[in-house]
Amino acid sequence: MVLNMSSKTYGTLENVMRFMAETGIVFPTGEIYAGKGDIAGFYTFGPMGSRLVENIKQLWRDFFIRRSKLTFEIDGSTLTPRIIWIASGHLESFWDPLVICKKCRKIYRADQLIEEILNISVEGKSIEELEEIIKKNEIKCPSCGGELGEIQKYTLMFQTNSGPLREGEEPNLVLRPETAQVIFISYKRVKSIAGKHPFGVAQIGRSYRDEISPRRGLFRLREFNQMEIEFFVLREPTCVPFSETDVNENPKKRELVESIKKQYGKVRYAPKCGTCKKCPLNNAPEFDTTLRNVQLRILTRNEQINASKEGREPKEMVMRAEDAVKNKILPNEWMAYCLAKETLFLTSLGIPKDAIRFREMLPEETPHYSAGNFDLEIRYDFGWKEAIGNAYRTDYDLTRHMKVSGAKLYEKLEGKIYIPHVIEPSFGIERILLGLIMYAYRKGEDRGYEWLALPPVLAPFKAAVLPLLMPRDFREKERELALKIWHELIDKTKYFIAYDDSGNIGRRYARQDQKGTPYCITIDAQTFSDNTVTIRFRDTKEQKRVPIDQLDKILTDLIEGKRSFNDL
Amino acid sequence: MVLNMSSKTYGTLENVMRFMAETGIVFPTGEIYAGKGDIAGFYTFGPMGSRLVENIKQLWRDFFIRRSKLTFEIDGSTLTPRIIWIASGHLESFWDPLVICKKCRKIYRADQLIEEILNISVEGKSIEELEEIIKKNEIKCPSCGGELGEIQKYTLMFQTNSGPLREGEEPNLVLRPETAQVIFISYKRVKSIAGKHPFGVAQIGRSYRDEISPRRGLFRLREFNQMEIEFFVLREPTCVPFSETDVNENPKKRELVESIKKQYGKVRYAPKCGTCKKCPLNNAPEFDTTLRNVQLRILTRNEQINASKEGREPKEMVMRAEDAVKNKILPNEWMAYCLAKETLFLTSLGIPKDAIRFREMLPEETPHYSAGNFDLEIRYDFGWKEAIGNAYRTDYDLTRHMKVSGAKLYEKLEGKIYIPHVIEPSFGIERILLGLIMYAYRKGEDRGYEWLALPPVLAPFKAAVLPLLMPRDFREKERELALKIWHELIDKTKYFIAYDDSGNIGRRYARQDQKGTPYCITIDAQTFSDNTVTIRFRDTKEQKRVPIDQLDKILTDLIEGKRSFNDL
Repeated sequence: MVLNMSSKTYGTLENVMRFMAETGIVFPTGEIYAGKGDIAGFYTFGPMGSRLVENIKQLWRDFFIRRSKLTFEIDGSTLTPRIIWIASGHLESFWDPLVICKKCRKIYRADQLIEEILNISVEGKSIEELEEIIKKNEIKCPSCGGELGEIQKYTLMFQTNSGPLREGEEPNLVLRPETAQVIFISYKRVKSIAGKHPFGVAQIGRSYRDEISPRRGLFRLREFNQMEIEFFVLREPTCVPFSETDVNENPKKRELVESIKKQYGKVRYAPKCGTCKKCPLNNAPEFDTTLRNVQLRILTRNEQINASKEGREPKEMVMRAEDAVKNKILPNEWMAYCLAKETLFLTSLGIPKDAIRFREMLPEETPHYSAGNFDLEIRYDFGWKEAIGNAYRTDYDLTRHMKVSGAKLYEKLEGKIYIPHVIEPSFGIERILLGLIMYAYRKGEDRGYEWLALPPVLAPFKAAVLPLLMPRDFREKERELALKIWHELIDKTKYFIAYDDSGNIGRRYARQDQKGTPYCITIDAQTFSDNTVTIRFRDTKEQKRVPIDQLDKILTDLIEGKRSFNDL
Repeated sequence: MVLNMSSKTYGTLENVMRFMAETGIVFPTGEIYAGKGDIAGFYTFGPMGSRLVENIKQLWRDFFIRRSKLTFEIDGSTLTPRIIWIASGHLESFWDPLVICKKCRKIYRADQLIEEILNISVEGKSIEELEEIIKKNEIKCPSCGGELGEIQKYTLMFQTNSGPLREGEEPNLVLRPETAQVIFISYKRVKSIAGKHPFGVAQIGRSYRDEISPRRGLFRLREFNQMEIEFFVLREPTCVPFSETDVNENPKKRELVESIKKQYGKVRYAPKCGTCKKCPLNNAPEFDTTLRNVQLRILTRNEQINASKEGREPKEMVMRAEDAVKNKILPNEWMAYCLAKETLFLTSLGIPKDAIRFREMLPEETPHYSAGNFDLEIRYDFGWKEAIGNAYRTDYDLTRHMKVSGAKLYEKLEGKIYIPHVIEPSFGIERILLGLIMYAYRKGEDRGYEWLALPPVLAPFKAAVLPLLMPRDFREKERELALKIWHELIDKTKYFIAYDDSGNIGRRYARQDQKGTPYCITIDAQTFSDNTVTIRFRDTKEQKRVPIDQLDKILTDLIEGKRSFNDL
C-alpha cells in the first residue's frame, strides 16, 4: 500500500500524546498516583501500544536479523555489574550538568536552562564555561527567581546494590543506560558461535537514563526501548580511521597513533576510506543492489558549519548509498549499508521519505574515538530530532573492556593483533513510535472522530469481525457465524483479529478506525443467502463483498501488500 | 510430532547449564569480569537462548492472548514509583531473613541456612523463632565457623532514586519484583478499553528480586522474565471466598467480614464455590470443551498434610478440569480454566504430562488474602519445583491501591460496590526454559555429541540449508543454489533458517542437532539433475528427497505438525 502523505506531520506532539492516552496506546506509569509519589519519564503501553511496540520489534527483527545471515541476537540483563561502566568510560563521562535553586530546591539541567533563556547553543561547553555564562547573564531560577547553586556533575545512570550496602562503598549494580555495552561484554561468546568476522550482534531491550528533565512525552524518557546492533569488522591495525589534522589536534588520538607506530613501525591515515576496496569495512557482504540504490538524504558536517557561518538554512544532499561512500561523504560501506536499511525500514512503516534525513554530527557532538556519527533524524512537529544513532565506534569499546577484564577480545592473524572495529546503529523505539503515530494520525474532521492511517503490517489488529445484528431475527445466527469466522481467521492466519458486537455499526467502525484497524468484516442478512461478507477499507470507507471461504487468503494478501483493495 | 519421553529428565542441572553456556543458550552477564566485580544471578541469553526465549513468549502470546477475545496485553515500565509498593504491601512484607557472619562478613538467608544444616522446614516461622533455632542448635557460619549476627529483615526489592537523593529520604523508585502490580495500577485504563468484566490483562517482562543467594543456574535469578495475567471478575460483594473456620482463625479475615456485614447486613461464606453457577467466577467464557476435558494432576493441601502425618509420600489425584471444580478441589471455574490452559501449553512445548503437577499451597505458604494458590510444579532432576504460580488473590490488590491512590477501581451496580476479584497465573520463563532444555537434552552417546530434541515450534532455527560441496567441480554452483534456496525459504516462510557451508557435512549436521534444528536441507550433485534436495530429520537422522519447488510448503507442514516426516 502506498501511503499518500506529505512530510508535514498530521498530529502535533500535544494532540498525539492526548489521543494515545485516550485510546490506550500509552499512559504514564502509576498515573493513579499522580501528585502522590509518581515520577515523570516512565510510561506504560496499553493494549494498543503494546501491540504497536511488539509489531515494530518483530518487523525490525525480521528485517535486520532473520534476513541477515551474519547477525545474531542476544538478550542480556538490564542490571549489570558496575565494573562494566567503569571500563566503558560511562561512570567518568556520562553525566549532565545539574544546578539546584538555593531557595526553592528545584533542579535544572544547566545547559538546557541557558539554551532556553539565552537562546544560544552551549553544546560541548565545560562546567566552568557554563558557570561563567550563568554568572555573566545573571540567570536565576525561572520558578522562584532564587539564586542558583554551583553546577554539579550528575550521573545519568540509575544505580542500586545487591546485598546490604556498607558505608563508604559504591553500589555494585548499574541499570544499563544502553544495550550496547552488554553486547561488547558478550563479544567473545558470540564470536565462538559466529566463527568468523564480520558478524553483527543485535539486542532489543530496555535502557535507563536518569534525565534531569524528561520531556516531550515519549521523546525523552527515563526508561525506554532500544534496538541496537554492533557489527564487528576487522580492519588493518595500521590503518587509522582519522585524518592527520584530526590526530594532531587531539591528544587522545595522538596517543593512539603513537602506540600503533611503536608496535608496527608505520601508520596510515584513512578517515573516509570507501574507495579502498581491500578493507573489510568496504566489503559489507549484505550490501546488495537494492541497498546500494537507496537514496540517502544527508546533511554533512561541512554544510552545517558553512550554513551557520553564512547565516542560512543548511541544505541536505541526496545521493545513492553507494555513491555516498565513493564520494567520501560516509566513512565506509558498512555505514552506508546501515543507513540504507534504516531508510527502507522507516519508510515501510509509514514515515515519508522527505521526513527522514541523516545528519553528520558536529565535532563537539562526537566523542574522541568516533570516526563518523550520522543521526537519522525524523521531522517531528517540534523539529528534526534523532530517532536512530549511527556511530563508527572504531575499536574503542573492545579495547577498553580488554584492558579492564584481561579477556582476549581480538583476533591474531599473521602476527598482527586485530581488535574488531564496530559500526553501531542504535534505534529508539519510542521515538520511532512517536514519529509513526504523528504521521498516521488523522484529525478526521469529515468523520467526526480522530483515526490512524497505520500501514497494515503495523496495525495492532489486522481486521475486525463485526456482526451487523440487523434485522433482529437474524441476531443470534449472525453472532454465531461472526464468532465462527473470527475463530477461522485466528486459526488460518497469525494475525490479531478484533471482535466487536456491541453498539451500532457506525460506532464500531469508528472504534476500529481509531485503532488503525485497516479492514472491517461485516456479517449481514445477505451473508446467509450467498455466503459472502462485506469487507471495509479504513482509509476510504469503501466496502466490497467477498466469499467467506476466501476471506483468510484475501486478508493475508491485503496485509502483505500482494493485492490492493481496488482489485477485489 | 509426538515426543516419546518419560518424565525422567534427560539432562541434569549441572550438565544442562554447562551445555547451555557452550552452545550459546545462556551465560552469566559480564562473565569476562569473573572475580573482578561480577555479581551472581544475572544472565545473558546468547544467539540460541534469545531465540528460545522469544519463541516461548510468542507461543504464549499466541495461546493466551491472541486466541482470547477477553485478554489484553500491556507493557509497563520496570522502574516504578515507590508508592506502588507501599500500597501493595511489598515494602512491609516482601523480605528475607538475612544473617551476617560477625567474623568473615559472609551473608546468609537464615531460613535456608537452618533448613540446610538441620534438614527441617521452617516455612512461615517468625524472625524470633528463627533466632531461637539458631541459638538452640548453635549454628555457626559454615564458611569460617564464626558467630552469626542478629537476623535482619532484608527487602528483596532493588531500589534506586531519580534525581539526587537527599539525606534522610527514601529512594523514590523500585525495580518491580513482579509484573502484576503494574497491571493493577493500569486496571482503570484497560477497563475503559475492555468495556466490561470479565477481562484479563497480560504482561510479559522483566522482574527483579535481590535474592540473598541466587542458585540452581536459571532457577533462582536476580533478574528474570515473567508472563503474568490478571483476570478481573465480578463477584457478589456479600460472598466471602473463605470458610467460616478460616475467618474465625484469622484477625485480618475477620476484619474483612465485619466490614461487609456492616455495609450489607449479611455475609455468605463461599470458599470453593464451583457448584454455584450464578457467580461470574464459575462462568469463564473461554473454558471450552477441550479445556474442560484436560486431565489435571493435583496434590491437595489435605493430602500433603495427611501424608506428612502418616510419614508417607503424598499422592496426586488426576481428574478432568471441570470435575476438579465440581468436586471442590479448585476454588472456581476461572482457576480450572487457567490450570487446563497451562497444562496444554507446557505439554505442547515438550514437558511430559507426568512431569507436571499442581500443588495446592499449604496455609503457611499463602498470604491471608489468598483464597486458593496452586503452583504448577515441573519435575526437575533436583525435585518438583514451582514454574508457574496460580493465585486467587480476591479483591485484595485493587482494594489496597484504591485506598492509597483514591482512584475508582470498582464497578457500582444497583447500589452495590463490586471490587473485581482476581485470578492470577504467573509464569517464570527461565524456569520453563530450564525444564524444556532438561527434557529435550540428549546425551547422544550413539552420535558422539550432545543434542536437543526440541519440538519444532520451539527450535531456534526451523531448518538449515547446507550445500554438500562435493565433488569439487560443483562447489560454486551448489553454494549459489543453496543461497537461492535459503533466500526463498526466508521469503516464503516466517521462519529463522540457518545457512552453513563450512566444514564437513557430519560436523555441520552435528552443529544443527546441538541447536535442536529439526530439519537439514542438503544440496548435492543429484540436485542439478532432478531438482530435488535431501531433507534430514534430526531425531532419526533419516533422509528423504523432496522437490525444491515444494520445499517451503513441506517445511511449513512439518513444523506446524500437519504432516509427519514418515509421510514424505
